[in-house]
Amino acid sequence: MAADDEVLLDFARQGRTGLAEAVFCSGKRVEQLDVIASRVTGEQRPMLFTRLDAGTYDRLHEKYPALSDYDEASQTLAYRPAPMHESCAVAIVSGGSSDVPVSREASRTLAFYGHPSLVIDDVGVAGLWRLLERLPEISRHKVVIAVAGMDAALPTVLGGLIGAAMIAVPTSVGYGMVRGGETALQSLLVSCAPGVTVVNIDNGYGAACAAIRILNQVRD
Amino acid sequence: MAADDEVLLDFARQGRTGLAEAVFCSGKRVEQLDVIASRVTGEQRPMLFTRLDAGTYDRLHEKYPALSDYDEASQTLAYRPAPMHESCAVAIVSGGSSDVPVSREASRTLAFYGHPSLVIDDVGVAGLWRLLERLPEISRHKVVIAVAGMDAALPTVLGGLIGAAMIAVPTSVGYGMVRGGETALQSLLVSCAPGVTVVNIDNGYGAACAAIRILNQVRD
Amino acid sequence: MAADDEVLLDFARQGRTGLAEAVFCSGKRVEQLDVIASRVTGEQRPMLFTRLDAGTYDRLHEKYPALSDYDEASQTLAYRPAPMHESCAVAIVSGGSSDVPVSREASRTLAFYGHPSLVIDDVGVAGLWRLLERLPEISRHKVVIAVAGMDAALPTVLGGLIGAAMIAVPTSVGYGMVRGGETALQSLLVSCAPGVTVVNIDNGYGAACAAIRILNQVRD
Amino acid sequence: MAADDEVLLDFARQGRTGLAEAVFCSGKRVEQLDVIASRVTGEQRPMLFTRLDAGTYDRLHEKYPALSDYDEASQTLAYRPAPMHESCAVAIVSGGSSDVPVSREASRTLAFYGHPSLVIDDVGVAGLWRLLERLPEISRHKVVIAVAGMDAALPTVLGGLIGAAMIAVPTSVGYGMVRGGETALQSLLVSCAPGVTVVNIDNGYGAACAAIRILNQVRD
Amino acid sequence: MAADDEVLLDFARQGRTGLAEAVFCSGKRVEQLDVIASRVTGEQRPMLFTRLDAGTYDRLHEKYPALSDYDEASQTLAYRPAPMHESCAVAIVSGGSSDVPVSREASRTLAFYGHPSLVIDDVGVAGLWRLLERLPEISRHKVVIAVAGMDAALPTVLGGLIGAAMIAVPTSVGYGMVRGGETALQSLLVSCAPGVTVVNIDNGYGAACAAIRILNQVRD
Amino acid sequence: MAADDEVLLDFARQGRTGLAEAVFCSGKRVEQLDVIASRVTGEQRPMLFTRLDAGTYDRLHEKYPALSDYDEASQTLAYRPAPMHESCAVAIVSGGSSDVPVSREASRTLAFYGHPSLVIDDVGVAGLWRLLERLPEISRHKVVIAVAGMDAALPTVLGGLIGAAMIAVPTSVGYGMVRGGETALQSLLVSCAPGVTVVNIDNGYGAACAAIRILNQVRD
Amino acid sequence: MAADDEVLLDFARQGRTGLAEAVFCSGKRVEQLDVIASRVTGEQRPMLFTRLDAGTYDRLHEKYPALSDYDEASQTLAYRPAPMHESCAVAIVSGGSSDVPVSREASRTLAFYGHPSLVIDDVGVAGLWRLLERLPEISRHKVVIAVAGMDAALPTVLGGLIGAAMIAVPTSVGYGMVRGGETALQSLLVSCAPGVTVVNIDNGYGAACAAIRILNQVRD
Amino acid sequence: MAADDEVLLDFARQGRTGLAEAVFCSGKRVEQLDVIASRVTGEQRPMLFTRLDAGTYDRLHEKYPALSDYDEASQTLAYRPAPMHESCAVAIVSGGSSDVPVSREASRTLAFYGHPSLVIDDVGVAGLWRLLERLPEISRHKVVIAVAGMDAALPTVLGGLIGAAMIAVPTSVGYGMVRGGETALQSLLVSCAPGVTVVNIDNGYGAACAAIRILNQVRD
Repeated sequence: MAADDEVLLDFARQGRTGLAEAVFCSGKRVEQLDVIASRVTGEQRPMLFTRLDAGTYDRLHEKYPALSDYDEASQTLAYRPAPMHESCAVAIVSGGSSDVPVSREASRTLAFYGHPSLVIDDVGVAGLWRLLERLPEISRHKVVIAVAGMDAALPTVLGGLIGAAMIAVPTSVGYGMVRGGETALQSLLVSCAPGVTVVNIDNGYGAACAAIRILNQVRD
Repeated sequence: MAADDEVLLDFARQGRTGLAEAVFCSGKRVEQLDVIASRVTGEQRPMLFTRLDAGTYDRLHEKYPALSDYDEASQTLAYRPAPMHESCAVAIVSGGSSDVPVSREASRTLAFYGHPSLVIDDVGVAGLWRLLERLPEISRHKVVIAVAGMDAALPTVLGGLIGAAMIAVPTSVGYGMVRGGETALQSLLVSCAPGVTVVNIDNGYGAACAAIRILNQVRD
Repeated sequence: MAADDEVLLDFARQGRTGLAEAVFCSGKRVEQLDVIASRVTGEQRPMLFTRLDAGTYDRLHEKYPALSDYDEASQTLAYRPAPMHESCAVAIVSGGSSDVPVSREASRTLAFYGHPSLVIDDVGVAGLWRLLERLPEISRHKVVIAVAGMDAALPTVLGGLIGAAMIAVPTSVGYGMVRGGETALQSLLVSCAPGVTVVNIDNGYGAACAAIRILNQVRD
Repeated sequence: MAADDEVLLDFARQGRTGLAEAVFCSGKRVEQLDVIASRVTGEQRPMLFTRLDAGTYDRLHEKYPALSDYDEASQTLAYRPAPMHESCAVAIVSGGSSDVPVSREASRTLAFYGHPSLVIDDVGVAGLWRLLERLPEISRHKVVIAVAGMDAALPTVLGGLIGAAMIAVPTSVGYGMVRGGETALQSLLVSCAPGVTVVNIDNGYGAACAAIRILNQVRD
Repeated sequence: MAADDEVLLDFARQGRTGLAEAVFCSGKRVEQLDVIASRVTGEQRPMLFTRLDAGTYDRLHEKYPALSDYDEASQTLAYRPAPMHESCAVAIVSGGSSDVPVSREASRTLAFYGHPSLVIDDVGVAGLWRLLERLPEISRHKVVIAVAGMDAALPTVLGGLIGAAMIAVPTSVGYGMVRGGETALQSLLVSCAPGVTVVNIDNGYGAACAAIRILNQVRD
Repeated sequence: MAADDEVLLDFARQGRTGLAEAVFCSGKRVEQLDVIASRVTGEQRPMLFTRLDAGTYDRLHEKYPALSDYDEASQTLAYRPAPMHESCAVAIVSGGSSDVPVSREASRTLAFYGHPSLVIDDVGVAGLWRLLERLPEISRHKVVIAVAGMDAALPTVLGGLIGAAMIAVPTSVGYGMVRGGETALQSLLVSCAPGVTVVNIDNGYGAACAAIRILNQVRD
Repeated sequence: MAADDEVLLDFARQGRTGLAEAVFCSGKRVEQLDVIASRVTGEQRPMLFTRLDAGTYDRLHEKYPALSDYDEASQTLAYRPAPMHESCAVAIVSGGSSDVPVSREASRTLAFYGHPSLVIDDVGVAGLWRLLERLPEISRHKVVIAVAGMDAALPTVLGGLIGAAMIAVPTSVGYGMVRGGETALQSLLVSCAPGVTVVNIDNGYGAACAAIRILNQVRD
Repeated sequence: MAADDEVLLDFARQGRTGLAEAVFCSGKRVEQLDVIASRVTGEQRPMLFTRLDAGTYDRLHEKYPALSDYDEASQTLAYRPAPMHESCAVAIVSGGSSDVPVSREASRTLAFYGHPSLVIDDVGVAGLWRLLERLPEISRHKVVIAVAGMDAALPTVLGGLIGAAMIAVPTSVGYGMVRGGETALQSLLVSCAPGVTVVNIDNGYGAACAAIRILNQVRD
């Protein structure tokens, strides 16, 4: 059965890459998720579920009460997360209040793998002083995940001010030429600040994984 | 003859809109430009030529020595510009050294119509302090033309800091996802700073015309 | 709390740019809007809410009866708008009846900041005489906001006939190659009439802000 | 041999559709064109060559002096055109001087098939009165080919004023969001004036063929 | 009131162009349509409503029983159509059964203005003989409207076989690279058959208007 | 050295897939090609070079006279091709004379691997009878490679008439909405004829490889 | 009646191409499907229905109980499929669990025409060993249908390892730059593995038809 | 003078971000580069020049002989690079020989800032074993820069096999749907391997900067 295989393979991948596979729920039918949930809770295996809508969560939770650490804003469900590291090496900075679901997906993913993070929302550069006030705090972290939609100017400004490893996440909220986040994505890829890397639109999970890859090198 | 008509009609338009038609040269054959040059110099009519490459200028200048106020960086030729106003109401701010041709097209167009401008190049937000140092100077102007390519973050940052009328010009220089300026254009259209307006890619001339429309209202 | 910060920061921005930040509602959850509404009505602070659907408005209004100046066509809610200036310096001209929500968002935004405007709908250039009849009236204004969808020919025609500062707003209504307003937007950016500036698709709010930036210069 | 076949087949097509196939030169090597020229002049068969650059024409003309009716602006070569009809049923109207090559390709194609046409260039709607003055003249024709680039507003305005069959041709000249004529094309396809049809960018030949299809119906 | 103006202006346009304005319903609110319906039935003015969904029609019909000639497939409502001409000069040919709504919109529009048409559906070229069998019948008409989605090969094949005036309508049905009809549209614009003209995606109404422009010339 | 490795690896791939790797020349510098040519001729290893322009070929040929089987139309160079099979199982059919370079690249690739093919050019469906006359001949082959640009209607028509395995190759020649072959590509992907597969634009080499994969199955 | 014609014509096509036409349901109204179902069951003619949603199937099944072989995952309904061949010549390989509906549409289509297939899901190359373990099994088949979404790397890796005829199907599931499958499609078209052919996004039916065209040649 | 300012500001940025600004040459005129070269060599300041074509380099070198460390493949010029670290923490892996200029730009940038790197070219996944053989070597590095064009499958496969920090660089070489590298870019952004980050097309410099940001954290 496909879903079983998938769960089995996580552990092999974790060994190789340090990243257990998460379950991306939005393309899956409830029956597929049910098989996974049964397996995961039966074996008490840690697992992160992403893009899990509240309705589907409720159905899973009812059947598998152990699946209870759900966050609606980020649509994530964490089961048996890793113990938390002490030091906080990642700052997550976002531009506007509609970027919150993405910054939350990143912080929840980091937490699941045991990495605390500092989250600073709503410091878009159209109100520059909001960002500058928080700069000393931000620059104390080894990795900065910058979440920004619309014209995504935040990571460029930030990238010129700090030396941390920088991962930018474009977000999709907006209308017209926002184009579902493609404008923000393109803007980030041609950022004037050197060394800013980019992940897919709204991909807070991917940004957190990239951060973990870096932290795993730092801690070796 | 079409080219003649075109010259004739400038004066009607100027009466209606306050903006004489300029001659956009890049789509025109030398013979067409020759007819216009002959007519313009014969009647000593003021005229601005834009997107005129140096080679074609040399040929025109040889035949019509009165056509001599040429600027290669902006590819503009001015003939009998208007007398200059005293007060400088427009600041032109650009992000990088490759934006200079566009900011120069804007300042040359303004000058042709009699409007002085302050030009501040190379203050992109990836080096934020360069911009902040010039802020008091910039904010003394009624209209700010912000020229920016790549991710075009400059006008957003500026728009959140000053209250002037703001016209943003995206520029085309760069590679990959710069896409000939479309990324900058899209980014400007979804700017988080409210009230920033936009013109076509590399259109320094159009930005200057928009500024003049505003100044004409201010001075009425 | 993010939403609080946002409200707090409006006043700083207003000081710098002359434009208080409005609340763009479509990306926000009801709880976020509730916090803002509570804060705004508690402090009796002026605030404009845009893209607020009728259902959400009803919920807010029920809890905060002081929030009552709602306009469904433009999906705007104004609270404690500025006193109205006497002279009307802005004309808002639109091409078809489906452009009304956008022209109304512009006029409501202007009104919130104290600027009266003349609204002339349904004068698209496919029926040219409708526009020409209103031309003398339109040309008496310092700023003209031209709202147009489909092929967006209206601002080009208008821009060749009047000398006012011109801000064009493309609209999204239509099917096939209308492409959610991108055709209108592109068309406006390459308009043959010089000095026409453009804002994002359907962005009546942004056009009004751009007009206010201009008016603030005129009135200084 | 392919090129021979092609020449042979023209006559079959002409019988069926009333339109002899023309030779589109830009994709062909000189040797291919040489075979066609030899065949055409040998049999004294009428033929229209389009997109033939001046250099290649010179080489063909040298070898086949009978091929001499070349027009550089439109890059067309006509050999043994049909006798001209007396009445002029087609008006070709264009917006700017850079549209001339396309309007000329249309008029040369019509002439080759024996149809006179009235050509009116440089009446773009940014200078509306230029167009309105010529309106009575234009509206006396059964078919109007409207050639327009940039924002292509001309056919919309015209389509609301006259009842002729209307064929619009977008043109490619310009920069930035002109996008090689795609903006003009899209704009024409969503024109607010009903019953305006469109052909490919810069396709003056195709517009003329469409006009001939109509005229063939009128004259039956 | 905007909606009233719109109704008033129809008659002016009909005088100029021979085409009364129809009411495009999909962008309008029920109240706007109600005003128009009241006006139209009160004055017993002929009117065509397009893109009118069945639910809204039911509401209008209940209040204005005279509005009863509704066709659900094409979402058109005709009120007091013109008397029908005797001769049938237009053939409407479509490729697949999902093109029927568009071919029906075209035939209903033609009928409203008094033009009978022959409709031949489901003769796509992937089953070539279906088309070839109907060819003699099709080629007896002065204008052929070819409706085709997917790869839209039908109009190309047809355009090489008949000499009628040809108007092609791309349709939007399908998935993947069908891209809402853009593939069909592009394909038609570069058709190898000369003289095929194109209208917007799914625009059966526009194709009919273009046909009427032609027929008006034929019948003069 | 990278280029050496590349040559070495061909043989491994041939063992696995039955297809030796060819050398795609257009992205490579002359020095890289020189290393490969030296190696190939030294070991007398069969090799196909594609996208090799005539100038570079001349330089290689001068140094390595054994490299002499060059075809300019298709820009291919074959060295020590496989012995030819007797039976001809592939037909290559193209629509217009500008598709010849691509159909030739396919036939040359097939020949290099020992597969004869029948090439039929210039049978586009805008002249339908040209294609129908050749149909019996075409349908005797096991694989048909259909090469078509513009609207690419040929493979759809053909796919409805024959049962062979069908591989379609879109071509890039043309202007305007031809978009460098993307319109043809999209059109082929949504072809109404089922079971037509597609390769990249202008990729005659890839189509031949796909045909060989099929023939290898047939002959097992 | 169009729908009747369509059913009639299947048999002609089957004679010519070996592929009976299937009924693509998603664009059709229930009444159209009802006519087809009545005809098909009345004559006991084999028929495959694709893209038939469960709700519509239930209505058809209730009225025509003989229509009962429905598969919800692939949304296919098979009526009187062909007898199954003994040997299994096709492998269907997919990358992730969200590709299952497409791989199932392919296997169901093959089965309807009498071709067994081996289906191997969930062997995406991000977990490379999953694929490599199944390689010997896969490489025993004459045709491999590779179904892959996201970055669609599976068919490239596979194409470099096996010599079978390869048909790749891009799938649409995902968010952001997945772009409804266009990224996967583009990626497949430029695959580094030669001879991989491609069909439309999510087109499992088309891939199966292409496989059958090949198998028909193998078995002749 | 703008160019001077630019040089001055490098040092400020280096202090803040650990990355001195490099001089991107392709948009600059020779005179601008001359000013920078004079300044840099006069002050003996370290500087990296990127996208410097050989012709311009020759002119600079002639005037400033100290500028001599030029690499034509990557078009980079290094002046007074930092002393090299001992340990090699970065592996640069590329798929094909046309990716070499980009992988070289990355290694040259790293070297300029004192970071050795291991470069492994030509290990694309269409020949999977080439990559697998080098895997143990690759996985010993803290950061892997994966350079890949076409379908860019290499980083996905690699990302599933190793745990290093991964930065992917799409490249632009190829034709048709390669689209100047956009297909590779999109493909990388939706990679099935989690935690792979991406920079702009052909941006070897940017990838190196991102690696340095990471290494700076590791070494703190």
